[in-house]
Amino acid sequence: MKSDRILGAVLALAVSAAAQAASSGEVLERSKPGDWRRPAPENTLYLELDSGRVIIELAPQFAPETVANIRKLARSGYFDGLAIIRVQDNYVVQWGDPQADGGEARPEPEPEQAIPAEFTREWEAGLPFTPLPDADTYAPQTGYIDGFPAARNDRRIWLSHCYGMLGVARGQAPDSGTGSQLYVIIGHAPRHLDRNITLAGRVLQGMEQLSSLPRGHGPLGFYEADQTMPPIRSIRLAADLPEDQRTPLEVLRTDGARFKAYIESRRSREEDWFLEPTGRIELCNVGVPVRTP
Amino acid sequence: MKSDRILGAVLALAVSAAAQAASSGEVLERSKPGDWRRPAPENTLYLELDSGRVIIELAPQFAPETVANIRKLARSGYFDGLAIIRVQDNYVVQWGDPQADGGEARPEPEPEQAIPAEFTREWEAGLPFTPLPDADTYAPQTGYIDGFPAARNDRRIWLSHCYGMLGVARGQAPDSGTGSQLYVIIGHAPRHLDRNITLAGRVLQGMEQLSSLPRGHGPLGFYEADQTMPPIRSIRLAADLPEDQRTPLEVLRTDGARFKAYIESRRSREEDWFLEPTGRIELCNVGVPVRTP
Repeated sequence: MKSDRILGAVLALAVSAAAQAASSGEVLERSKPGDWRRPAPENTLYLELDSGRVIIELAPQFAPETVANIRKLARSGYFDGLAIIRVQDNYVVQWGDPQADGGEARPEPEPEQAIPAEFTREWEAGLPFTPLPDADTYAPQTGYIDGFPAARNDRRIWLSHCYGMLGVARGQAPDSGTGSQLYVIIGHAPRHLDRNITLAGRVLQGMEQLSSLPRGHGPLGFYEADQTMPPIRSIRLAADLPEDQRTPLEVLRTDGARFKAYIESRRSREEDWFLEPTGRIELCNVGVPVRTP
Repeated sequence: MKSDRILGAVLALAVSAAAQAASSGEVLERSKPGDWRRPAPENTLYLELDSGRVIIELAPQFAPETVANIRKLARSGYFDGLAIIRVQDNYVVQWGDPQADGGEARPEPEPEQAIPAEFTREWEAGLPFTPLPDADTYAPQTGYIDGFPAARNDRRIWLSHCYGMLGVARGQAPDSGTGSQLYVIIGHAPRHLDRNITLAGRVLQGMEQLSSLPRGHGPLGFYEADQTMPPIRSIRLAADLPEDQRTPLEVLRTDGARFKAYIESRRSREEDWFLEPTGRIELCNVGVPVRTP
């Protein structure tokens, strides 16, 4: 009896998560090769840290000029040898030039053209948007487009600040973000940032290398002199690496029936463990599946 | 021009967060001593790790029998020398007896009485509940009670799985959680767990010591043999320590005008940086302020 209770406690939340995984897992097990896509190498960014590779899919559909400049920065070697400069708990990891506000800032290559604020884009009926059926606090409708969480109203659509999303730090001016400082969300979704700053992609693999970094001791989580900033070995586009140095990944298509079934498996938890199967889900709790083929 | 852009990029998201802090900060600066409360020492748990103290406020209003047993476990020294056994990215940190599912489990003291599932409690009109005005995906109404995020319907009220909340791991049986294995949410709120498992408190200080732990290499984030489980030096109630070993903390009262003003400062971002002041907020994005007096 006592050992049952202890065993129960050990299985505990594990049972919960396992049950979830099983149900969603069944949906994915039944998937066919065509349900998955390989992100374009031109849209795949490798952030190389001492702890390994973080893989990011860029979203030129939403931030074309910003992504073009991030590609240019990566190809010029701009990021190589820079560092993670900020880790604020339940908020963001941010990287860039530690000297950027001092006198010895590394020069950025000139952008091909002015980079506008790319916070939202026009809504068009033909977009491959899969809506969620449930109410959202922040937007009239939420859903997924090309693998990214998004929200929309009658006129505009925008990417949303879910866990793992990549954003473009900016100053006071809306168009002041070039992509030379980037951040990733490592906490509860700060959805109030939606439509206020450019989102440019999503981490597909390696989130734990960012989310488990020591928090910065300074205001807003900036690293202080008593801390070592984790160095960035390099940032490269997969397209610029030989095939054998790329990491093959597949992302579940978000415009097909398989993903709709996956959403349903996450919305309603029919496993025995759940007394309340919930029957609804919020945008940032779905998570678009990624696998190694 | 270029250096302006670089500077802009550096200030970047920092400006965003600073602006938020200023606005919410003004509300808190105008607070009076009576706007704050000191959690009862009997409800304050100190989780001592090698990295320092994590401070948790217990919620006996919602989980009376579970909290009584957590107190008993702490007082018996049950947790001392056990370990963090699981860190799953964007989900939970969990601690307890690493041997609990083996043959050498540490015996738990017998509970004073059977511990029921304490997932929800009856809604009563007189409860000090401060509602949020905005729609929520998961519940008819959300808000705050005694410093904790909560949700309700016409009949019941329950604590919600926001970042930093403390939960009681359980097995398949709803009443199988004793408090000997506890978890803390370290990612986007898994609100589908609401009403499915007992929540028993909230971390007031030291979250970063949990959230930055290395993720477990095993399924569901359990630590594997190649990893070192972070040891638990002890878990104690503040009430059982001499005054000079306690950490003084104050929590903003959630039943007063000051907290309502704070919610409004977080709902509508009137600072210049925000192009869209949002004008709404989701339960887990408010955060109940804690300070050192």
